[in-house]
Amino acid sequence: MSGVGKNAQSGQAFADTLRAVIRGKAKPVGSLGRLEDLALQIGLVTRSTKPVLGVAKVLVFAGDHGITAEGVAAYPSDVTREIAKLVLAGTAGISALARAAGAGVELVDAGMVTALPPHANLIDRRMGRGTRNARREPAMTLEECAGTLEAGHGLDACLDEENVGIVAFGEIGIGNTSAAALIGHVLTGIKLETLVGPGAGLAPEGVKHKLLVLRETAARAAIAIDEPRSRALETLRQFGGFEIVMMVGAMMAAAEARRIVIVDGFIATAAAMAALALAPASRESFVFAHCSAEPGHRALLDHLGTVALFDLDMRLGEGTGAALAIPFVRAAELMLREMADLPGQHPT
Amino acid sequence: MSGVGKNAQSGQAFADTLRAVIRGKAKPVGSLGRLEDLALQIGLVTRSTKPVLGVAKVLVFAGDHGITAEGVAAYPSDVTREIAKLVLAGTAGISALARAAGAGVELVDAGMVTALPPHANLIDRRMGRGTRNARREPAMTLEECAGTLEAGHGLDACLDEENVGIVAFGEIGIGNTSAAALIGHVLTGIKLETLVGPGAGLAPEGVKHKLLVLRETAARAAIAIDEPRSRALETLRQFGGFEIVMMVGAMMAAAEARRIVIVDGFIATAAAMAALALAPASRESFVFAHCSAEPGHRALLDHLGTVALFDLDMRLGEGTGAALAIPFVRAAELMLREMADLPGQHPT
Repeated sequence: MSGVGKNAQSGQAFADTLRAVIRGKAKPVGSLGRLEDLALQIGLVTRSTKPVLGVAKVLVFAGDHGITAEGVAAYPSDVTREIAKLVLAGTAGISALARAAGAGVELVDAGMVTALPPHANLIDRRMGRGTRNARREPAMTLEECAGTLEAGHGLDACLDEENVGIVAFGEIGIGNTSAAALIGHVLTGIKLETLVGPGAGLAPEGVKHKLLVLRETAARAAIAIDEPRSRALETLRQFGGFEIVMMVGAMMAAAEARRIVIVDGFIATAAAMAALALAPASRESFVFAHCSAEPGHRALLDHLGTVALFDLDMRLGEGTGAALAIPFVRAAELMLREMADLPGQHPT
Repeated sequence: MSGVGKNAQSGQAFADTLRAVIRGKAKPVGSLGRLEDLALQIGLVTRSTKPVLGVAKVLVFAGDHGITAEGVAAYPSDVTREIAKLVLAGTAGISALARAAGAGVELVDAGMVTALPPHANLIDRRMGRGTRNARREPAMTLEECAGTLEAGHGLDACLDEENVGIVAFGEIGIGNTSAAALIGHVLTGIKLETLVGPGAGLAPEGVKHKLLVLRETAARAAIAIDEPRSRALETLRQFGGFEIVMMVGAMMAAAEARRIVIVDGFIATAAAMAALALAPASRESFVFAHCSAEPGHRALLDHLGTVALFDLDMRLGEGTGAALAIPFVRAAELMLREMADLPGQHPT
């Protein structure tokens, strides 16, 4: 992932070197604002003062949710597959936005109700025909949960082959704002009423019903484990879905492989929180792209102590917010690699 | 600029058609948030439901300011030329950010103190060796001001030749936050203390001195013209600079030619306000990219009744904020042109 300028210094010393390099660029100190923070992060992840991130890729994870039987979503599960088909046809929202960012899109079927025919951009990692209804029973078994995480981890080999340095994570899954709200609730202690929102388009009455169902679901699961790693695993198993859990595995692996991980909206952020509970060192790789219009997203970002790069009042999912952030990451990479130093300042 | 799908409907009817097209895309209604507003704007500017914007280009206008003799800037005028050289060398901040956005950069010398040697990316439109000291006398004569506007207007022919559909406007000019603060003050009535800030890096004492000098400058000019167009022209003449006035002409011409005009930070926004006073219909083409850390910028954006697309706490100038917005414009263009319609909804 990293180019010339690799550095064998200790982490702290190298961070200081990077800060001096960024400070020494031909501009008033600090005048590139948060782009400088992003450049520092890219330098740390790639361990380079001249990073070459390589290819950008959007991974869209698709899965269905048994809990939709409880009337928590504005659309039926079939819609997951309809959108997935548009992604493969290159005409979904994410298709247009990824193209604008110069990034390819792969669709990962983590467990939709019905499979799609083979396609060059479809990665088949189906763990089931949607999850079980988490209101009644755990969304998946322990074995399914572990297998889904492992399958997500295994996807990193594809990224390695294509020299991917920037991975944008998105999802499709009718019902998955319910799973994300439950995961966020258990991992952070934020109240469900803060995290439950309209998703793809529930009316206020529907949101009230969703909140009741999710309260019952949280009570049914009754997660009382304190150790953060075990708590995160049990949370993922209880609430799913396959696309979220697989994303968790893939995010952890991408961070381990020192790629930049761009996190999309509410659901991807819930996945990122689980990944951080399982592998706290992943944090260095995570870029939170946008603040979604789904109301719980800001609460999760606040809990993480971060502010997203932008807020365009988007709530489509599919990785659309993450795709829009790719050019910001690229700009920070090129700033660090190619921008001139101020005369007389060569801190490396 | 526009591709297939050109439409001969009246303005209002065509806007309604565009809204229906955007509403009918395969996504929950409104779920692409402000990107949908941008798509509407692009559709209106290109008069197309399938816009093809063509090439993106960054124009960086450089000029010097006589008022620096009053100690209003943190750096001497020589620095304008030093940065301009980096732009031509391809190693300035804007060089890296434009490259990340897939856009070329042209430097327009509108009137630096000292000329640069010829270069393929240098457009020589020198109107003088910097402006006069606006604290003592008008920054330029009436003839110079008119000639500078006209030269800016004339630049549009270059954009036409290269099929440019997206123009990002930036500037370099030690002292030009002073000119921009004065222009903003006279055109909006916002108090100078709200609009005067540190620029490239004045300490608080320096900002106090700058405010005193600019108050004296505004008092010296004593602009008492009410008719908006004449008031704007007199304001530009009194305070300059060449790079700002030339940008005004080029922005108006680009809007007239139905290109998307991306406005950078504080100084470019002051120029945009003058352009709007001279040609109010330009508004349709203007995209305000980022909210700068220069404190007066937010006040100008508020006065315009707009919110910038993002705020990364940047204050470098050179068009860096505008360059970062190019991929957002491109994303909105591709969304409108290439995203699927919902089944059964073909509103065009």
